[in-house]
Amino acid sequence: MLPQLFSPSVQHTLDLVGIFVFAISGALLAVRKNFDVFGIAVLAEVTALGGGLFRDLIIGAVPPAAFTDKGYFVTPLFAALLVFFLHPQVERIQGAVNVFDAAGLGLFCVAGTTKAYAYGLNLTASAALGLATAVGGGVLRDVLANEVPSLLRWDRDLYAVPAIVGACMVAVFLHYDVLTTFTTAFAVTAAFVLRLLALRFHWRAPRAWNRRSTVREVPEDGLGGGVAEQEKATA
Amino acid sequence: MLPQLFSPSVQHTLDLVGIFVFAISGALLAVRKNFDVFGIAVLAEVTALGGGLFRDLIIGAVPPAAFTDKGYFVTPLFAALLVFFLHPQVERIQGAVNVFDAAGLGLFCVAGTTKAYAYGLNLTASAALGLATAVGGGVLRDVLANEVPSLLRWDRDLYAVPAIVGACMVAVFLHYDVLTTFTTAFAVTAAFVLRLLALRFHWRAPRAWNRRSTVREVPEDGLGGGVAEQEKATA
Amino acid sequence: MLPQLFSPSVQHTLDLVGIFVFAISGALLAVRKNFDVFGIAVLAEVTALGGGLFRDLIIGAVPPAAFTDKGYFVTPLFAALLVFFLHPQVERIQGAVNVFDAAGLGLFCVAGTTKAYAYGLNLTASAALGLATAVGGGVLRDVLANEVPSLLRWDRDLYAVPAIVGACMVAVFLHYDVLTTFTTAFAVTAAFVLRLLALRFHWRAPRAWNRRSTVREVPEDGLGGGVAEQEKATA
Repeated sequence: MLPQLFSPSVQHTLDLVGIFVFAISGALLAVRKNFDVFGIAVLAEVTALGGGLFRDLIIGAVPPAAFTDKGYFVTPLFAALLVFFLHPQVERIQGAVNVFDAAGLGLFCVAGTTKAYAYGLNLTASAALGLATAVGGGVLRDVLANEVPSLLRWDRDLYAVPAIVGACMVAVFLHYDVLTTFTTAFAVTAAFVLRLLALRFHWRAPRAWNRRSTVREVPEDGLGGGVAEQEKATA
Repeated sequence: MLPQLFSPSVQHTLDLVGIFVFAISGALLAVRKNFDVFGIAVLAEVTALGGGLFRDLIIGAVPPAAFTDKGYFVTPLFAALLVFFLHPQVERIQGAVNVFDAAGLGLFCVAGTTKAYAYGLNLTASAALGLATAVGGGVLRDVLANEVPSLLRWDRDLYAVPAIVGACMVAVFLHYDVLTTFTTAFAVTAAFVLRLLALRFHWRAPRAWNRRSTVREVPEDGLGGGVAEQEKATA
Repeated sequence: MLPQLFSPSVQHTLDLVGIFVFAISGALLAVRKNFDVFGIAVLAEVTALGGGLFRDLIIGAVPPAAFTDKGYFVTPLFAALLVFFLHPQVERIQGAVNVFDAAGLGLFCVAGTTKAYAYGLNLTASAALGLATAVGGGVLRDVLANEVPSLLRWDRDLYAVPAIVGACMVAVFLHYDVLTTFTTAFAVTAAFVLRLLALRFHWRAPRAWNRRSTVREVPEDGLGGGVAEQEKATA
């Protein structure tokens, strides 16, 4: 997904790494939701490929890469199998999974922006699609699992911001015509490090001002319950 | 989105007004759901542009207008900022917001039908896509917020019917080859006024016959709780 | 949707039967969710046409068949009307509805695979899209109704497996160039019978291994409550 910037084999390997870790996050949620083995596979596929699929439909790259590259399709199935058999072990290395997920976030926001621009979209739209590539799969995962997308929730560490920064850096590089392998790697790294810092220091984005005046305050629920459920619990 | 019917600048201004008010409704829901500032921006974008995006994907107009027109993309961000800082004030003028939303509904159902027909769809499909253009963003908004789409709920004032009427009027005008600026404005106004009347007199659509025989009756909840939650509350 | 395998009129009739029974399942869920008449119609349309729509967007067949064939569009409306007036009677013949739904599952997984292959996708991707054609509408139905997709839930009789078997049989036939009317009918029948057996003997797919170590066990709820709700009930 990073045309002409890395060598094709390096680029493809990076894509597959990103797809694999995104699929792990989908499969883990499926286990937590008590889904069966097919539910785990579906959620792994959707999480890993959903963002790129959305981008490809928007830019008219049909059939999308998710359906033409067998590696893209098969990789999430391996992730699903791994989680199916070893999910307690995978849960235990959640820290490592988060690091890889941050790497996937960095790779996908940059690759998505680059591909959208290559298909003729303007810089603003390309950056927006880069963001969508990086976070779209996770949103679809949460929608299918009938949860409030963690992307939208205030009580989650920053996820959109690192992707926005990475995508905007690529847009700026494209504007000044300085997008090279080096600057691309720099944008990927920036998004990656920013996400790790957000995880480490629990950076969060502000909610609307004057919230208390109209919205019932809810206690934070360490068990990962949805906002709606929290509100019910306090009602 | 109304090719050749209004002058381009008038047409574009009307589009932006519709996009703005739809974005307001998305941003307000995001605040009520306690989302952070990025969640507010995402829900504003999705609500404002989702219906047109769906239509453009179906008719093959890629990349969709939402990604080629910078005004379309930036307008929801302004709405999100406004709601972020001033949501108590915006909530207070909910009546005015509803009037503008009704205007957006009228504009979008007519514009969607016209554009679909211009891309070669038959009249039935064009009217269906006109409806989808008008209500699709709101459905996506509710799905992302993990709520039952208000479009589908019986305890909401008529929303689909005005859009259906507007879209079908355009289809009839197209069939008899009498679609002019005047008749277009007439269809927009009809949908607009119908929606205002539905709001004013709380018109609702019937639910299935003989419901009581199989479905538990639930009290109406003035606080906007979902159907599922109401059922839980009475269980 | 089965190009050149059955005679066009036979093929079209089979498509409409599949669309009709899928629409019935959508309309029945809408009634159970207490939606109004438009909600019933929307859920009928989405359930019946959603899977094929997704496939057509992926393979670039725009506008999708759902919007070019008036029969495809009107059939779900008849199903919605039927359920609107007679849903207690339709609920009572749920067994017959399930048999037709199984037939729809078999027809759609085979037709989806065939059409995707005709548009140039590889065999793996074609089979995946065949599965998506068959189950996509049901997933969209559940997402719009704000329920955990029954496709993903462990406490539902096998639904994905029959569709996977049918789609993979077609892929194998295509690989060996032996896809005829006869082998097509065989694949449809295999998926159909497999689904009926799953319903009859309550076959279910396994959940992740070692589940008990990390996931709270929940009692099975015969009333069709969602997983999340069950967890809340036991909490």
